[in-house]
Amino acid sequence: MSINLDCIFRPKSIAVVGASTRKGTIGYVMLNNLIRNNYRGKIYPVNPKADNIDGIKCYHSIAELPERADQAIVVVPRDLVAQSVDECGKAGIPGVVAITAGFKEIGGEGIQKEKEVVDIIRKYGMRMVGPNCYGVINTESAYSLNGTFSKLNPIPGRVAFLSQSGALGEVVLDYTNRLNLGISMFISIGNKADISDIEVLQYWENDPGTEVILVYIENIENPAEFMHAAKRITSHKPIIAVKAGRTESGAKAISSHTGVLAGGDVGIDAFFEKCGIVRAYSFEELFDIAMALANQPIPRGDRVAVITNAGGPGILATDAIETLGLKMARFEPKTIEYLRANLLPMAAVTNPIDVIASGGPEAYGAATQASLQDANVDALVVVFVPPIMIDHKAVLNNVIDKVKQYQNGKTIVACLMGSPRGIAGTEDLIANNIPVYAFPDGVARAFAGMTKYRQIRSKPVAEVLHFDVDKNRVSEIIDNTKKGGQKFIMGPEGMAILSAYGIKVPGSARATTEQELKAALSKLTPPYVMKTDDPQAVHKTEVGGVVLNLTTPDDALAAFNDMRRRFTRPDSSFCGVMVQEMVTGRSGSEEPSGSKSGIETIIGMNFDSSVGPLMMFGLGGISVEVMKDVAFRVNPLSKGEVAEMIKSIKGYKLLSGFRGAPPVDFEALEETMLRLSQLIVDFPELESFDINPFIASPEKGRSMAVDARFVLKT
Amino acid sequence: MSINLDCIFRPKSIAVVGASTRKGTIGYVMLNNLIRNNYRGKIYPVNPKADNIDGIKCYHSIAELPERADQAIVVVPRDLVAQSVDECGKAGIPGVVAITAGFKEIGGEGIQKEKEVVDIIRKYGMRMVGPNCYGVINTESAYSLNGTFSKLNPIPGRVAFLSQSGALGEVVLDYTNRLNLGISMFISIGNKADISDIEVLQYWENDPGTEVILVYIENIENPAEFMHAAKRITSHKPIIAVKAGRTESGAKAISSHTGVLAGGDVGIDAFFEKCGIVRAYSFEELFDIAMALANQPIPRGDRVAVITNAGGPGILATDAIETLGLKMARFEPKTIEYLRANLLPMAAVTNPIDVIASGGPEAYGAATQASLQDANVDALVVVFVPPIMIDHKAVLNNVIDKVKQYQNGKTIVACLMGSPRGIAGTEDLIANNIPVYAFPDGVARAFAGMTKYRQIRSKPVAEVLHFDVDKNRVSEIIDNTKKGGQKFIMGPEGMAILSAYGIKVPGSARATTEQELKAALSKLTPPYVMKTDDPQAVHKTEVGGVVLNLTTPDDALAAFNDMRRRFTRPDSSFCGVMVQEMVTGRSGSEEPSGSKSGIETIIGMNFDSSVGPLMMFGLGGISVEVMKDVAFRVNPLSKGEVAEMIKSIKGYKLLSGFRGAPPVDFEALEETMLRLSQLIVDFPELESFDINPFIASPEKGRSMAVDARFVLKT
Repeated sequence: MSINLDCIFRPKSIAVVGASTRKGTIGYVMLNNLIRNNYRGKIYPVNPKADNIDGIKCYHSIAELPERADQAIVVVPRDLVAQSVDECGKAGIPGVVAITAGFKEIGGEGIQKEKEVVDIIRKYGMRMVGPNCYGVINTESAYSLNGTFSKLNPIPGRVAFLSQSGALGEVVLDYTNRLNLGISMFISIGNKADISDIEVLQYWENDPGTEVILVYIENIENPAEFMHAAKRITSHKPIIAVKAGRTESGAKAISSHTGVLAGGDVGIDAFFEKCGIVRAYSFEELFDIAMALANQPIPRGDRVAVITNAGGPGILATDAIETLGLKMARFEPKTIEYLRANLLPMAAVTNPIDVIASGGPEAYGAATQASLQDANVDALVVVFVPPIMIDHKAVLNNVIDKVKQYQNGKTIVACLMGSPRGIAGTEDLIANNIPVYAFPDGVARAFAGMTKYRQIRSKPVAEVLHFDVDKNRVSEIIDNTKKGGQKFIMGPEGMAILSAYGIKVPGSARATTEQELKAALSKLTPPYVMKTDDPQAVHKTEVGGVVLNLTTPDDALAAFNDMRRRFTRPDSSFCGVMVQEMVTGRSGSEEPSGSKSGIETIIGMNFDSSVGPLMMFGLGGISVEVMKDVAFRVNPLSKGEVAEMIKSIKGYKLLSGFRGAPPVDFEALEETMLRLSQLIVDFPELESFDINPFIASPEKGRSMAVDARFVLKT
Repeated sequence: MSINLDCIFRPKSIAVVGASTRKGTIGYVMLNNLIRNNYRGKIYPVNPKADNIDGIKCYHSIAELPERADQAIVVVPRDLVAQSVDECGKAGIPGVVAITAGFKEIGGEGIQKEKEVVDIIRKYGMRMVGPNCYGVINTESAYSLNGTFSKLNPIPGRVAFLSQSGALGEVVLDYTNRLNLGISMFISIGNKADISDIEVLQYWENDPGTEVILVYIENIENPAEFMHAAKRITSHKPIIAVKAGRTESGAKAISSHTGVLAGGDVGIDAFFEKCGIVRAYSFEELFDIAMALANQPIPRGDRVAVITNAGGPGILATDAIETLGLKMARFEPKTIEYLRANLLPMAAVTNPIDVIASGGPEAYGAATQASLQDANVDALVVVFVPPIMIDHKAVLNNVIDKVKQYQNGKTIVACLMGSPRGIAGTEDLIANNIPVYAFPDGVARAFAGMTKYRQIRSKPVAEVLHFDVDKNRVSEIIDNTKKGGQKFIMGPEGMAILSAYGIKVPGSARATTEQELKAALSKLTPPYVMKTDDPQAVHKTEVGGVVLNLTTPDDALAAFNDMRRRFTRPDSSFCGVMVQEMVTGRSGSEEPSGSKSGIETIIGMNFDSSVGPLMMFGLGGISVEVMKDVAFRVNPLSKGEVAEMIKSIKGYKLLSGFRGAPPVDFEALEETMLRLSQLIVDFPELESFDINPFIASPEKGRSMAVDARFVLKT
């Protein structure tokens, strides 16, 4: 879907409605920023009481403008916003940036006021950012638009930033300036009364000047729509996001096992994972990743080479790289030979390369060239601690020269430590798109983020399978439950839901004669459980109507005859028995034996209020309850995602054959989860469920759900 | 122990041996730094070829100096260092700072050269820092000593810094300057040929001008001595350390279960924990914590109040605080009332307090006062995003005023976000000892570090218990093993070591007659294992000489008679049987039943080459092998430490009574670990051991070690 927000980001003329003559007011600063940043379009200040502001002609009303402006920045007091927007509509202005606050965010009458404004926007078919926002920036030279009240002039570049918080907008601009990180566009999205975050992301998706999208959000309004768009965008353009509120724990009562484990921030992590969004846990991390992605190719692998001129920083860099799951590259022999021939005798020629303090431009050049030419290197970190008596600028420019000659698609970043007044040559690195970090931790965070994005982009498109199921049967069960005023579905009804969706449950059959029993037994796998089918036996166990653990057909026959004797009524009628397979699994730590060859797992779902249904998978017993060794994904699930979930828990070792045990039937386990995924899509009225245990068996056809408990939304 | 390093840190006169006339050389910069930083003592440049340097009289040799200098800074070429130091010794100079490199750190002849210098130092009874170091700083106004070749002038303050890396010394000074973090003393410790890191820490322990000690180290030379000193220091003065090489994994072959799990960085973590040192994992974290500790009281608890004027940053602060294990304070009702009466109607009056963007000096003052007066608040974070139209300096000074009036021992830090050119008033905060952070993450890291130090300081002194044991018996077993050229001790010998140290193992007895058997059985708890005691039966199992799982004395009697029949020799002699208690535990996830009421645990030890013996505790089975749910501590262990170890694993839930099972006999478990701790102290020749399983039983007297395997050092 192509979204056109040109009237917001690329206006050819702007009316500043509420422009002020008083310095320091927002109405003054907004106008002044447009002028000061050399906005290329026409500017029309609108103020009923002023004839000109700082020498620019001022109009007394929107109706007076000499042409139809593309955009109106609205900074009038709250109670005048609706009227101003209406005048904009009458004047045919297509885009509004509503800075003024005091709307939905304050509740009460603010909600009503916002609705009035939105109604006017809709009436005229206009588009609006805000209200309650910090404004919009587009650094493209054809626009040079700073439509914010920031004191800063953003540096043009390739990174777009969307902020849900106005206050953090200024922080972001400050930070990008200090890091020399160039911005393509910026938006403070405000109350999202009209234009949503999703629309802006889609606009940037097709903006050739934007290569990386950064997002700060506090809530996700329409998770399904957001995910749909984000998935498509992140398949070709990275999105990195900070989400506030990550430790916030759900306040509502929780009525399932899965729900308890799904607390805190699990849902947001799973949601971003599915969107292909790289999640940053702080602004530092966000910008560390952005600097690298905006300037350098994504590493083709995780093998990093480090060049340093001091031992300590080299060790710190190695530590940081290995801590975040990357690898120190192992050099080819020719690299080591080359380094030995070209560096000082005391230099270290394995990774990290230590050219030592007296290693100057030649040494850095040789080390850079050798690392880049090594086939075992995907990325290079140049650490430099500026020593006395070494020409810093020459060192860094030698690095730049070698990068130009030998980069060959590899990723290069610099870590310049201890720069009292800035190290000469730093600006040359930045001008040559080599991002500069102050500490090795930032470098490692950047690589980890880039690697995450590489993995995201290399994932195959997730296809959700569709199974033939008996949806009507489930509808019936749910309807009956609702009619009965209940929200829980357990026991035979729970198992019936599973059966209707093609999930194996223990086999069972009825028999009233020995012949029927024998026929039934021939289809069932021992051990068996036999229960009287006499409807008069309400408490079956108490009247001896249940016999467990019948290991052979003969035992079953004996039990049948005994039951027939005891439950035949005075009129000689006999209601027969229900015979079932008795299935027990073992927890992972038990040795496999006989009937306990399968492993107890738990498959669950919980509806997360911010991101929708979350599916959970884990092993039964202590793995879930004590170790919390579980995986979550946002539903619906593809085959690949299900396989990922299963592999991501530590207990995967047990499923895949631990201490010589055979691996479980993964196909059956995966299919079960996919069928449950379909169930969740088909029945949005499900609040949560636990399939506990689901026995994952090594034997074909023996994996099955032993118990299930569903909870309906209320 | 009192260490006097005054000749290093507090010299009244300094000879710069190798002072140079050439700008840019280290010999020039060292001298220039002393002058430029207004060193209060006398300066004597020494250079055979110069008569004066920059107008200061230069001496041609050390012998020529007009007085006995307190210190010599030596910057001559490597091969002249020994001679210079000897001349210093002859001249009676007590302290040497040897800057020159090319010694032990380069190996080969450098090692010999260093030894020569050390011999001279010892001969004259001098003290020396280095060689291969960056120098020494003391900012006390009576000295104002910058004896480094840094371009920076350190700011005087209360933080001392020890760096093992010279290169990082400059980085550290740069960082402290940028953060306005004042330094009391600084040392680049170099090769530690004479003065060790431990001595410096002890000197700072008694320095009234140093309130916080920061350390960057790469290796720990004498862990026992280091720990002894560090424990004492950290009981009254905080040490925060960055240790490089943290992901470095041991390269040697590993021959125990515990050894495998003790890889990587586990040892260093355990070592710092025991030293009472707060470990930082990056320089950022180090300085975040240092800024708070140097300026503010340690929080009395973990309840934090947050004041903000913007929603987003408030949420980020809350997130960061909760992520690192602190709590958001719950205000008293009177606080909320006060805030409601004194803040704008739209302000949020619960924690975090949001005074909103239009909240100015009054609002910040009221919120600061109310938070500090609230008994539920231990610490306060003032977040400020400078809005247009608000007097920033007035806001921050109102905060300062209220802090002065109401601080009352609470901890206060500020987070000033988005400061393009610095926010007016920032310097006032710093001058009033309120540390300023740029992002909420730094604040949270600071609080987490302070909280960690509070816990360290409130720990009772760890007393190591002493048990009566049969040490000779163990010596005997170890000696026999060594004599046999073996390094493993297993089976009966392994169990004998445990018995000698008073650790319960399954009971056993010998019997050759029915009477003896009955007597034996009366002392043992079923089930039993019976084994022939016939020395000719080498493979006991294969000749039917082992009977397992004898559940009653009658079964045992029958087995005995059967064995007597089969193993009575032609000459009618019978060697008898060994009858033992058969002990099996359950892994945590099994239901307790009968003989399997105990839980399998594993207690192990591994000798870590950098920090010494590490004791490990975990649950048996998958908890250790799959979940890696284990705890490590550096030996020897106190009662408190053992209890902490047991409680720190996730599986503690299972030991303390899960799903209604009775808790295990913790006293027996703890005593076992303490006895093993003593064994490790008594026998330093132990490389590692696994007691696997040790059955922790709920029944008194039924917890015991079932198998043990010891490995000797080779």
